[in-house]
Amino acid sequence: MPSVSDKGLRMPASPIRKLMPFADAARDKGTRVYSLNIGQPDIPTPDAFWKALRNMDIGVLSYSHSQGMSMYQDRWVDYYSRFGARIARENIIITTGASEALSIAVMSCLNPGDEIIIPEPLYANYIGFATAADVRISPVRTTINDGFALPPMEAFEQAIRPETKAILICNPNNPTGYLYTDEELQILQRLAKQHDLFLFVDEVYREFVYDGRTHRSILTMDGLDQHVVVFDSISKRFSACGARIGALVSRNMEVMEAALRFAQARLSPPSLGQLAGAPLFDLPDSYYTHILEEYDRRRKYLVGRLQDMPGVRCPMPGGAFYAMVELPVDDTDRFCQWMLEHFQHEGATVMIAPGSGFYSTPGSGRQQARVAYVLHLEDLARAMDVLEAGLAAYPGRLETVEGEFVA
Amino acid sequence: MPSVSDKGLRMPASPIRKLMPFADAARDKGTRVYSLNIGQPDIPTPDAFWKALRNMDIGVLSYSHSQGMSMYQDRWVDYYSRFGARIARENIIITTGASEALSIAVMSCLNPGDEIIIPEPLYANYIGFATAADVRISPVRTTINDGFALPPMEAFEQAIRPETKAILICNPNNPTGYLYTDEELQILQRLAKQHDLFLFVDEVYREFVYDGRTHRSILTMDGLDQHVVVFDSISKRFSACGARIGALVSRNMEVMEAALRFAQARLSPPSLGQLAGAPLFDLPDSYYTHILEEYDRRRKYLVGRLQDMPGVRCPMPGGAFYAMVELPVDDTDRFCQWMLEHFQHEGATVMIAPGSGFYSTPGSGRQQARVAYVLHLEDLARAMDVLEAGLAAYPGRLETVEGEFVA
Repeated sequence: MPSVSDKGLRMPASPIRKLMPFADAARDKGTRVYSLNIGQPDIPTPDAFWKALRNMDIGVLSYSHSQGMSMYQDRWVDYYSRFGARIARENIIITTGASEALSIAVMSCLNPGDEIIIPEPLYANYIGFATAADVRISPVRTTINDGFALPPMEAFEQAIRPETKAILICNPNNPTGYLYTDEELQILQRLAKQHDLFLFVDEVYREFVYDGRTHRSILTMDGLDQHVVVFDSISKRFSACGARIGALVSRNMEVMEAALRFAQARLSPPSLGQLAGAPLFDLPDSYYTHILEEYDRRRKYLVGRLQDMPGVRCPMPGGAFYAMVELPVDDTDRFCQWMLEHFQHEGATVMIAPGSGFYSTPGSGRQQARVAYVLHLEDLARAMDVLEAGLAAYPGRLETVEGEFVA
Repeated sequence: MPSVSDKGLRMPASPIRKLMPFADAARDKGTRVYSLNIGQPDIPTPDAFWKALRNMDIGVLSYSHSQGMSMYQDRWVDYYSRFGARIARENIIITTGASEALSIAVMSCLNPGDEIIIPEPLYANYIGFATAADVRISPVRTTINDGFALPPMEAFEQAIRPETKAILICNPNNPTGYLYTDEELQILQRLAKQHDLFLFVDEVYREFVYDGRTHRSILTMDGLDQHVVVFDSISKRFSACGARIGALVSRNMEVMEAALRFAQARLSPPSLGQLAGAPLFDLPDSYYTHILEEYDRRRKYLVGRLQDMPGVRCPMPGGAFYAMVELPVDDTDRFCQWMLEHFQHEGATVMIAPGSGFYSTPGSGRQQARVAYVLHLEDLARAMDVLEAGLAAYPGRLETVEGEFVA
C-alpha cells in the first residue's frame, strides 16, 4: 500500500473543526450544542445577495477570469478607495475565500525552508498553509497580560534570520480580537523596509472595530507598495462565509504576476459568489453600524461574563468577534472535548476552540481557548451559564493563586 | 524590494488562458473571437440548478463541513453506485472544483522531490499543481500517430524510479480526447500494484464518450482500494464550471484523513454550488444522451473539417470534448497569438490553445494545439473557416512531406 506524504502526516487538524464529530454525537444524544468554536456569524446574509441570486439570468454558469470578473474586481477597487487605499484592478485577484489568497501568497513569495514571522497565538489555519508550502513559522509571543498587543520591535529583530521572508499579522486579530494601533503598524512598516520583508496582513475583520476606534489598513501606509500583500474576504463582512469569495491585494506586480499563474492553475473563483456578491458593496453605512452595535453588545456581555467567572481571564478585545480566554483547567483540549462528551447543563453544552491549535510552539496555549461571539445575546447568556457550570464540574479544574495556575 | 519565490517564477502560465489578453484586444478592435481554447461548454446549466438557486431560503450563507455537506456527499455516493462504484460518504471530500481535489491529493500523497508519471500531452494545469507541490512530473510520451493511446507497459516501467509515487491519467483524456480501453486500465492496475504506486485518475469527462463505447471508472477495478484517488467535478457534466464544485474520492482512509486536514485548512467548498447542485444528480438519462448527441455532432464535424485541411492531422477522439491537432506551422504559440493579433477573416478570428503548454518536456508540442468543441455547429463551422484561412495566410506556415514537417 502506498504511503501518504510526510506533509500529509504533519498537516494539523483544525482546532476549530476537529471537535465537530463530538458535537455531532452530543446532538445525536439530544444535547443542544452552543457553537462558539467557529467564526460563523449568525447575522443573516443581506437581502441584496439573495435578490441578486434569484434574479440571475445567465444561462450558462461559466468560469470567470482567473483573477475574477472585471466588474467584480472594480467593486473591490471602489470599496478600497472609501478608506483611502488606491488600488487598481491589476492589484486584485479574486480568490476562493481569504484562505486561498493566503495559500497563493505564501507560495508566490516564499520558498520551501523560508520563514514567516507571526505573532502568536495565531489563526490556526496559518499553520496549515505554512505546512502545505513547506514554510517554517517563526512565532513571536504575545501575552494575555498585555491583552495580546504587538511585542516590541526588538522581539521581531531577534526572530529575523536570513531565511525570514515575511511577517504576517491579522488585524483585527483572529484569535485574540486585538486591534493594532498606528504605532504598532509603524513598527511593522519599519521592520519590512529595513529587513526587506513581505508584510502579509489579513484584514478580513476590517469593519469589526469597537469603542469608537478606527481600523488603519496597511494599504494606506507609505512606502510599502513592494512589501504589502493583503488578504480579504466577504465572509465576515457580509455574513457570506459559504460564498467562498476573498481577495489577494498587492501593488507589487511581480507578486501579482506569480499569484495570477497560481490562480490560473485552479481556473477561477466561484462565479455565483461574485455575481450575487457584487451588490453587497452598495450596502449603506447603516448596514455596518447596525451589525457593529450587535457585535459590540455581545462582546461586552461575553467578556463581562467570562471575567466574572472564578479563575478565568479574558482581556477586552478591540475588534473582530473573538476573545482569547484563559481557563482554570489542566488542558483545554481535554476540557473542550469533555464538555461535548461528558457534560450538559439543562440539556445543553458549549463548543469552544482549544488554544493549543492557535500556537505553533508545541505545548503552548493549554490553558487558553478561543471563543467566538457569533450567537445572539440570549443564546450567548445560556452558553455562558453552561460554560460556567462546566468549569465548576470539570474534574481537571485547576485552582489559581494570584493569576498563576497550580494543579 | 523582497523577491518572489523560485516557485512563483517557475509556475507556468496557463496555455489555455495566457492568450486571453490578446483575445480581449481583438474584441476591442471589433473582431469576433471564436473561443475554442477553453473547456467552457456552451450548453445551458440545467434549469434544476437555477430553480434550486431561486428557491433557496436559508437566511445565512454559512460554511459547510470541510468535506462538504453530508446531504451533498450522499448524492455523490448514489451517483457512483449507478455505475457500480461502491463509495461511502467517508470516501468523498467535496472540493472547489477538480482542481482543488488534485492539489490536495498531490500534497497528501507526494513529498517534495517525489515523481508522478503522466502520459504526455497532459492537461496543462497538472504542471501547475506539480510545481506548487515541488513534485516532479515524469512524462511518458503518447503520439498522434497512435491517436494518443497509452504507451506500452514497458514505457512506464522504464520511467519508474525510487522517487516515483504515482501515475496520473485523465480518462477520457484532456487534451487528447482519448478514451482508455479496459486493457489499458489493466496495465495501470498491474503497475500500481507491482510498484506500490498511487493511481490518480481524473474522470471529470466520464459521461462524454462516443461511438457506443462505455467509460470504465477506475473505481470499479479490483484490488486498487489503497491505490486509487479519483478527481471529479460537476463543471463539464452539468455545464456548471462557475459553481467550482468537484470531489476527491478514495477508499484509502490514510489518504482521506490527510486530505481532510488540507480541506480543513481552506475551511469549506462553496455552499451555493452544493445546494443548487444537489438536484442535478436527479436529471434523467435523457439529459446526458441529448448532450452527448450534440457533442458527437460537433466532434465529427470538427475533426472532419480539420482532417480535410492541408497539412493538418487530427485523430478522432473517443471522449471528452477536445481534439489535439497537429498544424503545419513553425510554432503554435506564435501562430495562436498571430491569429488574435494580426488575423481576421470576415471580421472574425479563432482562439485555440498552443500545444507547448500541454507538455512538460521542454520544446515539445510546438506543432500541436488543443481545440475544444464547445460551440454549436454553426459557430464551429465559421471557426473552422477562419482557422483554415488563417493557416493559409500565416507567414510561418510549414510545408509537409509525408507527414514530416519541413520549414
